[in-house]
Amino acid sequence: MTVAFKQQSADRLQESLALVQRLLERQRQLEDLVSRPEASEPPTDPLAPHYNLEALRLKLEQLHPADVAHILEALPLEDRLLVWDQVDGARDGAILLEVSDAVRESLIEVMEHGELVNAAEQLDADELAELAPDMPRQVVYEVMGGLDEEERAQLQSALSYDEDKVGALMDFDLVKIRADVSCEVVLRYLRRFDELPAHTDKIFVIDDLGLLKGVLSIRKLLVSDPDALVAEVMATELVSFSPDEDAADAALAFERYDLITAPVVDEAGKLIGRLTVDEMVDVIREESDSEVLNLAGLKEEEDLFAPVIDSVKNRWAWLAINLCTAFVASRVIGVFEHSISQLVALAALMPIVAGIGGNSGNQTITMIVRALAMGQMQLSQAWRLWRKELRVSMINGVLWGGVIGSVAWLLYGSFSLGLVMLGAMLLNLMLAATMGVLIPCLMQRSGRDPALGSSVLITACTDSGGFFIFLGLATLFLL
Amino acid sequence: MTVAFKQQSADRLQESLALVQRLLERQRQLEDLVSRPEASEPPTDPLAPHYNLEALRLKLEQLHPADVAHILEALPLEDRLLVWDQVDGARDGAILLEVSDAVRESLIEVMEHGELVNAAEQLDADELAELAPDMPRQVVYEVMGGLDEEERAQLQSALSYDEDKVGALMDFDLVKIRADVSCEVVLRYLRRFDELPAHTDKIFVIDDLGLLKGVLSIRKLLVSDPDALVAEVMATELVSFSPDEDAADAALAFERYDLITAPVVDEAGKLIGRLTVDEMVDVIREESDSEVLNLAGLKEEEDLFAPVIDSVKNRWAWLAINLCTAFVASRVIGVFEHSISQLVALAALMPIVAGIGGNSGNQTITMIVRALAMGQMQLSQAWRLWRKELRVSMINGVLWGGVIGSVAWLLYGSFSLGLVMLGAMLLNLMLAATMGVLIPCLMQRSGRDPALGSSVLITACTDSGGFFIFLGLATLFLL
Repeated sequence: MTVAFKQQSADRLQESLALVQRLLERQRQLEDLVSRPEASEPPTDPLAPHYNLEALRLKLEQLHPADVAHILEALPLEDRLLVWDQVDGARDGAILLEVSDAVRESLIEVMEHGELVNAAEQLDADELAELAPDMPRQVVYEVMGGLDEEERAQLQSALSYDEDKVGALMDFDLVKIRADVSCEVVLRYLRRFDELPAHTDKIFVIDDLGLLKGVLSIRKLLVSDPDALVAEVMATELVSFSPDEDAADAALAFERYDLITAPVVDEAGKLIGRLTVDEMVDVIREESDSEVLNLAGLKEEEDLFAPVIDSVKNRWAWLAINLCTAFVASRVIGVFEHSISQLVALAALMPIVAGIGGNSGNQTITMIVRALAMGQMQLSQAWRLWRKELRVSMINGVLWGGVIGSVAWLLYGSFSLGLVMLGAMLLNLMLAATMGVLIPCLMQRSGRDPALGSSVLITACTDSGGFFIFLGLATLFLL
Repeated sequence: MTVAFKQQSADRLQESLALVQRLLERQRQLEDLVSRPEASEPPTDPLAPHYNLEALRLKLEQLHPADVAHILEALPLEDRLLVWDQVDGARDGAILLEVSDAVRESLIEVMEHGELVNAAEQLDADELAELAPDMPRQVVYEVMGGLDEEERAQLQSALSYDEDKVGALMDFDLVKIRADVSCEVVLRYLRRFDELPAHTDKIFVIDDLGLLKGVLSIRKLLVSDPDALVAEVMATELVSFSPDEDAADAALAFERYDLITAPVVDEAGKLIGRLTVDEMVDVIREESDSEVLNLAGLKEEEDLFAPVIDSVKNRWAWLAINLCTAFVASRVIGVFEHSISQLVALAALMPIVAGIGGNSGNQTITMIVRALAMGQMQLSQAWRLWRKELRVSMINGVLWGGVIGSVAWLLYGSFSLGLVMLGAMLLNLMLAATMGVLIPCLMQRSGRDPALGSSVLITACTDSGGFFIFLGLATLFLL
């Protein structure tokens, strides 16, 4: 996008959103008045809704595509589609790139074939690759036919990688130079561009075969002697990425080294593209989002205003899993029904043991999942960490077990019931610490995402385990 | 930092970490052998531990400060301090900037006054401001005394803002020019620098009073006619930040507009600093980290290898809160002890109702907290979203309530028990949806962070509520 739209701060963006909402509200009122003229005292101008929409269109035209995207995401479906209708078709592509996956689907659904082709044709190969999975196949083929050979190869390459790989996120818009020219020549060469690729903070130095030899930072270029050769001022100690590397690993490297752009090379060392920090920021955001969502048992980002049925489907799977684990816990209690019927206080006290165990286990598992994701923990340290977590849980177990055991003693007048409560708390917290280390390590070892399902699994262990330990101890010692 | 250290990919970093760990392991063995010579068959070279440490020192010297920081974070405390001892003192400051807060504290604790002053003296004012809160006061004063007037003013300004404000994160290292000079003059001016400030992607254009007039992007400068005036090629439609704006809002703007740097201006429009994308990436990472940690009931980032007592303290508060809420739920059950003693199946079934409610409520609350944090939802929409969430929960309630109600019917042979189960599931999921919308909206309205404690609060509602609804319905209709 060459046009510079006004950027605005958070407050101003909220004001823009509020204005759009007022215009939408007014639109509904006006349409209502015009369609039912008898209801309005003075006759309404039949063109009023038209003028109002025009005002909305003007407002949208002034907004940055990312801001339009933000507004679309914040609107309920019908309002969103009305706004989308008012957006200039020439900006559809840029805006579709900015919205979240869920909202993108809702917009593409209502667009016609021609509109989609138009939107897609405005995009670069790497941008197209980002949209392609959500587009109807027919549209992708048609747009592909209009690309030149190089772009088509780039698009196909980008589409051949999983979306969490570097290859799917790299772009192809980069400036290449040779090492044997002077900085003066490079500056003259750059001046021939109409515009340098976005985020250009360095120029890539390649040889005759296209192999990456180094990078020339623009900051360095600007302060260097114009007669100096690129080979003399370029940096060679740099990180480059391979297209089938995990995007999350690349994002961590961007964070570590404060990178703006970085080269992507194939196995032979040939430069094939570059990564930019804006894509990496999105990776970091998506990664942490999916961590939070997974913990809550949401499959993927859900559009806030999604139709009820879509929301039900998104939340379905984990509720079902949770139902199964809750059923298992229920059967554990079922085994001890005889004990409970003899001492009904057990029923009231058992959820405390299970609940604290779940909370404590979730604390441990969150620490471990985080450390594994950031590469700060190796599986070889699991043993050491387990011993530490066990000690933490024993202190908490004795402490809080003592508190709640005393309360149980006072409440039910049975000292041995208090002791059983203390013992059960201690053992369940130790179980929580053990499973909190074990579950994510086993997941990691088997190549799965340690975050996924961790919370449900640990809660299942501490629920069933807590009920079993508490009711078991009570049956042994109290009855 | 002007020295360029080798950057390495995720795999290479893991190899470096493994090498350091091997050297540390060997060090322990060697020291053991030397101190107990009778145990070793061939006499050990008494200098062997020294040479081994030297190898460690050499390895560390080659590593980027960010990589040393990563390794320090991944090591248990005693190993970490041994490695820290081998790090060249001249790099202490750069490394302290990169490590997490928890690890930074552990390192500063063992450093002597002189070492700390040395480390701090290597830093710019904005970097110093980042470390200052963790440093002993005496060190900060001593270093402050060595700063020139401008730097001291910058440091004091940065320290005067909360650490989550733009003012605390901005840096002062920027290039300023006037609008009435030609691009050629700007290029000549830049060439006089030894090095341009990190991340320089734009130059700030100010007037005689220091007021920000626009920015000249380096990309634009490189392709512009050397004779063109800065005023003709600079951009004026840009976002600038105020020092007391939330850093999280600024980070969202960096994400929206794919910014690398952005100006910070005071109320009068005077340029006082700039924000850079690397700081914003840290803000995004920290923000999402604290979201995950808060959900799990961890107060702040905890060092993986923290002493047991520190971990206990960090997890203390939320376990105590959880204990209280669990106790309330237990008392709710206590009220119905008579019902349970008559129909002990209730004790086995009640955790299912509470558990599914908790899971469902956490799904809703995660959605709402997220939408509020991203500015995608206004409080005015709470009503609309509540109706939607209620519908989702009703579908899930009838569905899963039907399933588990049927199971209860089959298991215990009582159709009315199944019906009570269905009714309780439905009502508890509706309660979960209601509280899932209400809690974060009330927190936001009262100016608190909607994420903090949300999960504990919703679970408290669905536990106590679930037990009350289920046991209440059972008492009414079954007994």
